Amino acid sequence: MARSESAIAKRRKATLKLSRPDYVEKRAQILSAATRIFAEQGYRETSISDIAREVDLDRATFYYYVGSKTDLFDAIAVDAAEENVTEVERICSSDDPADKKLASLVEQLMSSYERNYPRLFIFIREYERQLEGGGSHSKRLKEIQKRYDTALSGIIREGQEAGLFNKDLPVREIGFSIIGMINWSHLWFKPGRSISGSDMGKAMSTLVMDGIRAKRKR
Amino acid sequence: MARSESAIAKRRKATLKLSRPDYVEKRAQILSAATRIFAEQGYRETSISDIAREVDLDRATFYYYVGSKTDLFDAIAVDAAEENVTEVERICSSDDPADKKLASLVEQLMSSYERNYPRLFIFIREYERQLEGGGSHSKRLKEIQKRYDTALSGIIREGQEAGLFNKDLPVREIGFSIIGMINWSHLWFKPGRSISGSDMGKAMSTLVMDGIRAKRKR
Repeated sequence: MARSESAIAKRRKATLKLSRPDYVEKRAQILSAATRIFAEQGYRETSISDIAREVDLDRATFYYYVGSKTDLFDAIAVDAAEENVTEVERICSSDDPADKKLASLVEQLMSSYERNYPRLFIFIREYERQLEGGGSHSKRLKEIQKRYDTALSGIIREGQEAGLFNKDLPVREIGFSIIGMINWSHLWFKPGRSISGSDMGKAMSTLVMDGIRAKRKR
Repeated sequence: MARSESAIAKRRKATLKLSRPDYVEKRAQILSAATRIFAEQGYRETSISDIAREVDLDRATFYYYVGSKTDLFDAIAVDAAEENVTEVERICSSDDPADKKLASLVEQLMSSYERNYPRLFIFIREYERQLEGGGSHSKRLKEIQKRYDTALSGIIREGQEAGLFNKDLPVREIGFSIIGMINWSHLWFKPGRSISGSDMGKAMSTLVMDGIRAKRKR
């Protein structure tokens, strides 16, 4: 009984927290500092103390605003990836033909990477570490990546069945190749440099759809 | 004078070492153990003691065979990458037209990845860490990656100038995209699973050259 009251009390306290503007503002400030630090020195290499110091809080007060480092990672990186994959799934379930869907998907991924920078940069770097066997710190990360892969395989299969795409290409592996081309860009693409995310997305989508060859004269 | 004699003595000792079959054999055994351990747990995460333990040597004796951890990385990963990039440069300087060169290059990179597995896996993972700002532990690593980029940009530019490749595509960024597609495969491609390195290289080269679209009937 006491336990159940305590749970209600906890929820009440949480609701109270979220309705207070100073709480919301401080949490936003923490998220912004954590985003900067994760991007600069890496998620794994960052401690809670590094972030607390940056926003002038002691560790105890810090935990009033933030549940854990994973909580921060989820709010910064995983939420951005989730919005992104939801948009990808929306593209997949549209009535467009598969070739239009695939081109939109590639363009969307690069534009949203730029728009959300560096949130997806942090996500991809951590995803990579996990694939390398670094273990999972965010349960949602793996789930989201599976949704990306399923969406992409779905479009490729659909395009092959409709006779739009080359049936000789292996579906799953070509999906990984396209995602890989995009994900690898976190190592060389920085917004505001030589090319915009949207132009890069168009260039990649041209490569994926039509290859590098000059178009034949008609 | 003493210093110069000592240098000669050192070289003499090194030559002597290399001509002794038991030395050569032990060093090969160490390289093979280090390759396995680097691939499994990561280069950075591996200590000299981990490898020494695996081959039943104390640290002092171990250093008789190996100069440093970087020395091991160079012999395992960088040497493989160097052979690979030398082959890429040979393709570039051939008399073939740019489209044939680019297709060969993509196929060569995937085949050699498989043939040398896991040596290039170790190389790419470490290269990635370095691009992420992890600092350089092997001076040769950066130099080799520059040679890959130069070779690829060179072929793309050549193809555009010859009217074979789409001139709207940004040279440098499309080069990075192609290399990225191939490099990202270290996270999902394992030799001996669903598809061979040479078939995957052909699928990737089809994608890069002609895109995903079904070929038009002629």
